[in-house]
Amino acid sequence: MISTNKTSRITLVGAGPGDADLITLKGLKALKQADVVLYDALVNDELLEYVPEGAVKIYVGKRSGDHSYSQHAVNKLMVDYATNYGHVVRLKGGDPFVFGRGFEELEYATQHQIPVTVIPGVSSSISVPALQNIPVTHRGLSESFWVVTGTTADGSLSNDLIAAAQSNATVVVLMGIKKLPQIVEVFKSAGKHDLGAMAIQNGSLSNEKVAVGTVDTIVDIVNREGVGAPALLVFGEVVSLHNRHPRAAVLHDTRSN
Amino acid sequence: MISTNKTSRITLVGAGPGDADLITLKGLKALKQADVVLYDALVNDELLEYVPEGAVKIYVGKRSGDHSYSQHAVNKLMVDYATNYGHVVRLKGGDPFVFGRGFEELEYATQHQIPVTVIPGVSSSISVPALQNIPVTHRGLSESFWVVTGTTADGSLSNDLIAAAQSNATVVVLMGIKKLPQIVEVFKSAGKHDLGAMAIQNGSLSNEKVAVGTVDTIVDIVNREGVGAPALLVFGEVVSLHNRHPRAAVLHDTRSN
Repeated sequence: MISTNKTSRITLVGAGPGDADLITLKGLKALKQADVVLYDALVNDELLEYVPEGAVKIYVGKRSGDHSYSQHAVNKLMVDYATNYGHVVRLKGGDPFVFGRGFEELEYATQHQIPVTVIPGVSSSISVPALQNIPVTHRGLSESFWVVTGTTADGSLSNDLIAAAQSNATVVVLMGIKKLPQIVEVFKSAGKHDLGAMAIQNGSLSNEKVAVGTVDTIVDIVNREGVGAPALLVFGEVVSLHNRHPRAAVLHDTRSN
Repeated sequence: MISTNKTSRITLVGAGPGDADLITLKGLKALKQADVVLYDALVNDELLEYVPEGAVKIYVGKRSGDHSYSQHAVNKLMVDYATNYGHVVRLKGGDPFVFGRGFEELEYATQHQIPVTVIPGVSSSISVPALQNIPVTHRGLSESFWVVTGTTADGSLSNDLIAAAQSNATVVVLMGIKKLPQIVEVFKSAGKHDLGAMAIQNGSLSNEKVAVGTVDTIVDIVNREGVGAPALLVFGEVVSLHNRHPRAAVLHDTRSN
């Protein structure tokens, strides 16, 4: 064990959707006071430049097919480093509590008597569509939005997704691009063939890719545009507001005349 | 008209849930380059300290019963100032596209040939529960979350809220505290008497107030604790993770033994 007079503590920080400037000021301040940073695959490397020289930086990312660390291993690392080094910043993509397993980390640390502070982040579920000028809510089009995971613990589609497809909410699906064909079938079964559908890969970053269509056309467009993981899906009338959507284009033509 | 050689542009910035440090770094950079700031009621005044000396700062807040500016008036102010002064930052509470009418502002400005940049913010819908250590999703408890407004344009309850009450999603209701008795009836009609329910006023600020209970008890607890607007409601199994929830207290007692 390393001798230290620093207080053991953990800060769970949301790094935002990708663009390094979309971290919060509070998250940045925590990074500047880190003794150790444990960061995920979807965290922008530029953020590590804010970490003090000499601090320990550990990549604990999980990508499909590359499970370098299990959740339990991450929990344990986090507590071990806090015990031995002082202030651990656990830097997570998006917001720590949106499908981020952040609460499991909070719970584990608390059980080991390490105090935890949560610093929310900009969630990709709202911000990635917003950066494409798509609001998740808009008067006359959508009074609510429903955020669902495309990847459940057992690999099946979430029952919540089936209910969401039948609702009037804007539906945002995280981690769903690999199951797009099955997800699209769920919306077709709900009779939503012409509903706007959109896939956004690497949202907020310079290598962002976007596919815009309808439930019936989105699979072909995603394949044609080569949109892959990590990506987010949006289903809803609000997609018609996008300037690449066929209906939106007509709308804008009319207005400019 | 004021003579200026500055380029007219508008930046829609999400200020976050209240805590001034929960603005993004990108939002902060925009504020530092503002010629004019138009800000809302729920924006933290401390953020105005980042605005350059000499910049114009205008409060365009709307609170219930105090409609100082209509949405149209805000749109028009924004465009007029951009035309005459250069860079207008439109600073909005939370995220500009979550029930923020941000898209209406974007659309109006675009129709007037003023370029608009959107900078997402930390939405209170996710962050305010998170700061109470309540995750909107958690394995085994919730595979999705549904964010609904409690205040529709015509004053009635949203049909989406009725559907949401019947779903398995964590339901977050924004701007709903004044309709809490009616909202609670909707959950009771769905048979959800014992579902966790929570109200949080002034989330992320030092004057935060929290009421934690169930669908059956929350109205009494909110009245007893004096929780009022602006507040956010959470309905879902995840509320049972809160340390003030009766079931959570039992859970924690068992664990610490």
